[in-house]
Amino acid sequence: MIIIGELINGTRKRVKEAIASRDEKYIADLAVREDEAGADFIDCNPGTIGEQEAKDMQWLVETTQAATDKPISFDSPNPEAIQRGLATYNGAAMPMINSVTLEPGSIEKMLPIVLEAQVNVVALALSEEGMPTQAGQREEVACRLIDRLVAGGIEPEQIFVDPVIAPLSTQTEVGQHIFQAIAAIRDYCPECHVTCGLSNISFGLPNRQLMNRAFIGPAMQAGMDSAVMDPLDEQLMAQVIATEALLGEDEFCMNYLQAYRAGKLDV
Amino acid sequence: MIIIGELINGTRKRVKEAIASRDEKYIADLAVREDEAGADFIDCNPGTIGEQEAKDMQWLVETTQAATDKPISFDSPNPEAIQRGLATYNGAAMPMINSVTLEPGSIEKMLPIVLEAQVNVVALALSEEGMPTQAGQREEVACRLIDRLVAGGIEPEQIFVDPVIAPLSTQTEVGQHIFQAIAAIRDYCPECHVTCGLSNISFGLPNRQLMNRAFIGPAMQAGMDSAVMDPLDEQLMAQVIATEALLGEDEFCMNYLQAYRAGKLDV
Repeated sequence: MIIIGELINGTRKRVKEAIASRDEKYIADLAVREDEAGADFIDCNPGTIGEQEAKDMQWLVETTQAATDKPISFDSPNPEAIQRGLATYNGAAMPMINSVTLEPGSIEKMLPIVLEAQVNVVALALSEEGMPTQAGQREEVACRLIDRLVAGGIEPEQIFVDPVIAPLSTQTEVGQHIFQAIAAIRDYCPECHVTCGLSNISFGLPNRQLMNRAFIGPAMQAGMDSAVMDPLDEQLMAQVIATEALLGEDEFCMNYLQAYRAGKLDV
Repeated sequence: MIIIGELINGTRKRVKEAIASRDEKYIADLAVREDEAGADFIDCNPGTIGEQEAKDMQWLVETTQAATDKPISFDSPNPEAIQRGLATYNGAAMPMINSVTLEPGSIEKMLPIVLEAQVNVVALALSEEGMPTQAGQREEVACRLIDRLVAGGIEPEQIFVDPVIAPLSTQTEVGQHIFQAIAAIRDYCPECHVTCGLSNISFGLPNRQLMNRAFIGPAMQAGMDSAVMDPLDEQLMAQVIATEALLGEDEFCMNYLQAYRAGKLDV
């Protein structure tokens, strides 16, 4: 699993305060903890708007890359903020842009940026019509988005397709729709990655971590190989390690046993 | 999920002692706890042999049915022990025989018993050649077994197909083989149930409960609707409830929310 650590996000109250007060220590500490817990990318989402967002992104990227070598995921719908993040980034590993959609204007603005910077890109299955609500819509939008990106010159390996996780509390069938969409996307583009904003599934429910854990197994089985998630959730991380073994991705359970010996499965 | 409580099993040391000493209180208490935790069947496995096994089965069934109204699963390869259990059983609900296989002699002896008693039957995917080891073997054996049982007059709804769970510690691909087998069996016989001896997957690994929990989500997504398992494992039971909601089997998450209010998700 390619884990995109979600904690540096300005919509979280404490992070919002840290961004506003330029609390480097708090952000750097989060980045280090996500890194050490196993995040492959560190998401940076200022959660602000306009020119302020670009400034905040620059500061987040400076602060994060001073604390960890992990590549950054620049998380914003705002091309200016993304470009500021890219201009600030000095890491060796290919970073990520989160995200491009089929909403009007998105591809037109983001595609040239992705092409020039040669970065990974999250392709979020939102269309002109907004959130998918019916069975089949997620994969239909996702496949169109893949086609547009590949036709525009992006390598499939750089594309992280996100089928858009909606809360299970709002629609009984949403889990099935998502698992079907993941399988269809995996089938349509075997070289693409499939990711998601995992915790959206449990929005509005109690014991959210339990529901997040339950989601990840069937999603990985369907073909999801990445998630934007909390790498500090030890039970969730243990569930990922066990599921990788079950899916044949861990020869002789070596990684599972190593994680056990490191105390990572004591949850 | 149709949960077959596995705890009354003579291969467990404390249960073996209780059977040998005719400790009614210990067995009755286990039966009540499995019942209250949500077991749909109470498995009774004497774990002894020959005429002793038939006597022990009779005592287990008498003791269990005095403590709970849940139907019993008579668990033995020995037709005499099964028949003694059936003769002793006085419950209203249809009980279960665990199990029939394609091993020589099994169908010939068990089929008439199942037909006469009109009970559920676990069809374990073992053939003349023993344990399945290759991809595709489980479903091949299971489908032949279904054919034999249905041709013999058993209703598909009475058949609980068990694809034979082998330890993941012995074969890296076994999880994939099992998930594929479950899906193939579900596809071949939509009216059949698919069950398994869940905890076999984690045999030989540390943190077995974690691996058991990780197994159940992908297995249920593939089509498993039953398991022989420990209903007193609260984390496992919570995982089942969350997974049922994710698979669209829990309208508006009502069961999930009810379980939360009853304190069953605080794990």
